[in-house]
Amino acid sequence: MLSKGQIKLIKSLHNKKFRKGTRMFIAEGKKLVEEIADSPIKVLHIWATGRYTGPLQHNQITEDELAQVSALTTPQGIIALCEIPESAGPLPNLDNEWAIALDDIRDPGNLGTVIRIADWFGISHIFCSEESVEVYNPKTVQATMGSIARVNVHYVDLGEILLKYKSENVPIYGATLEGNDVYATTFSQNGILVIGNEANGISERVERSVTHNIRIPSFAKNKGPESLNAAVATAVICAELRRQGK
Amino acid sequence: MLSKGQIKLIKSLHNKKFRKGTRMFIAEGKKLVEEIADSPIKVLHIWATGRYTGPLQHNQITEDELAQVSALTTPQGIIALCEIPESAGPLPNLDNEWAIALDDIRDPGNLGTVIRIADWFGISHIFCSEESVEVYNPKTVQATMGSIARVNVHYVDLGEILLKYKSENVPIYGATLEGNDVYATTFSQNGILVIGNEANGISERVERSVTHNIRIPSFAKNKGPESLNAAVATAVICAELRRQGK
Repeated sequence: MLSKGQIKLIKSLHNKKFRKGTRMFIAEGKKLVEEIADSPIKVLHIWATGRYTGPLQHNQITEDELAQVSALTTPQGIIALCEIPESAGPLPNLDNEWAIALDDIRDPGNLGTVIRIADWFGISHIFCSEESVEVYNPKTVQATMGSIARVNVHYVDLGEILLKYKSENVPIYGATLEGNDVYATTFSQNGILVIGNEANGISERVERSVTHNIRIPSFAKNKGPESLNAAVATAVICAELRRQGK
Repeated sequence: MLSKGQIKLIKSLHNKKFRKGTRMFIAEGKKLVEEIADSPIKVLHIWATGRYTGPLQHNQITEDELAQVSALTTPQGIIALCEIPESAGPLPNLDNEWAIALDDIRDPGNLGTVIRIADWFGISHIFCSEESVEVYNPKTVQATMGSIARVNVHYVDLGEILLKYKSENVPIYGATLEGNDVYATTFSQNGILVIGNEANGISERVERSVTHNIRIPSFAKNKGPESLNAAVATAVICAELRRQGK
């Protein structure tokens, strides 16, 4: 059973303003909620319908109640109220590690997919420019499929942070449409991969810190698409740099 | 100006049943509508607001009118009514070509992203099992970013079609979680890449035709995600097989 206050609270968390005010977010679906429960992220409350059969303690609600508060078109039987961590922790040392920088990424699904990709390719840190979509957006949380619990997302002044790493000789690779063919590039063992905004690419301010411009070659027979989706481009480049590092 | 009948028609096309009945679909946004107008797909009508500045002839409508019929959260100034082509054409000869087979893909955005990926990597044909999401879903059309005009999507009995190609010695690669490392695989110059359903992978019936099981290795440090998103996996494998073929 959900109280009126709980319904109001959960629904308010579909909205960024209230997530910021309360420092809470919601996560839905068996796999995602179980992964978060098994992570340092604090789960405050779990509600589930009769469909949920996993090990997590929860308050039972009806499918109608769930549909009322769910952010999904097709609710998945379980919803959790979680605490937004205080911070993503200190900036990492990148002498032997890779990180991803997202310059003004706007689509919540893209951000969530990039987090899942980073997790798959062993990249623990993502830097987002302050204008980027928020990581606790329900669509982002959902698209991470649980990787949100394992990847640190830092909201930073991207231009400044990249200059700092550049001054420490961390190579900074910018994904562009005109750079060097990614398959003719020898990647370093560490670095930052910069992915631009879906429509406008990498901003001028961020571009200044890029030390290597790279591009994924197109194999289209005639006129193909102008670009790849931002998350897809991230995956193709991460796959290539890990292949080389093997 | 939009008539009541037009408003009703356009809104009905958000729904699969009406797309099937009328054989029409909608496309939105400058780039997408211009790409479709420049393709064999027949555009029946274009409406745009004062924001649209491209070359296409259109009927002027207000932002309020557009918001009323748009399938997008943020309408993009232009919407076109298009005709669904009679068929995707004959099945291709794959003696020297690659195709992608989608076994029960369910997410409309994933299907659209796969179409854009196929176009980028020079793959002109996609086979979808009959239960897969429909290609003229507004979210799919949108995610193709125009590639829908250049890639042929065939809805087929996937088990049967794959058996046919297999009997013609076309290699069939199935993306799984346990197959051979994709970076230790030498890809043929032609073939079919089979991608399974988002939650359940490749079905038993389709699996029987697979001649090579492959997997994208995970580089996660500890426990990482169970899998990659279906479109992301498609991209990583297409990139690798094209890299090898260069």
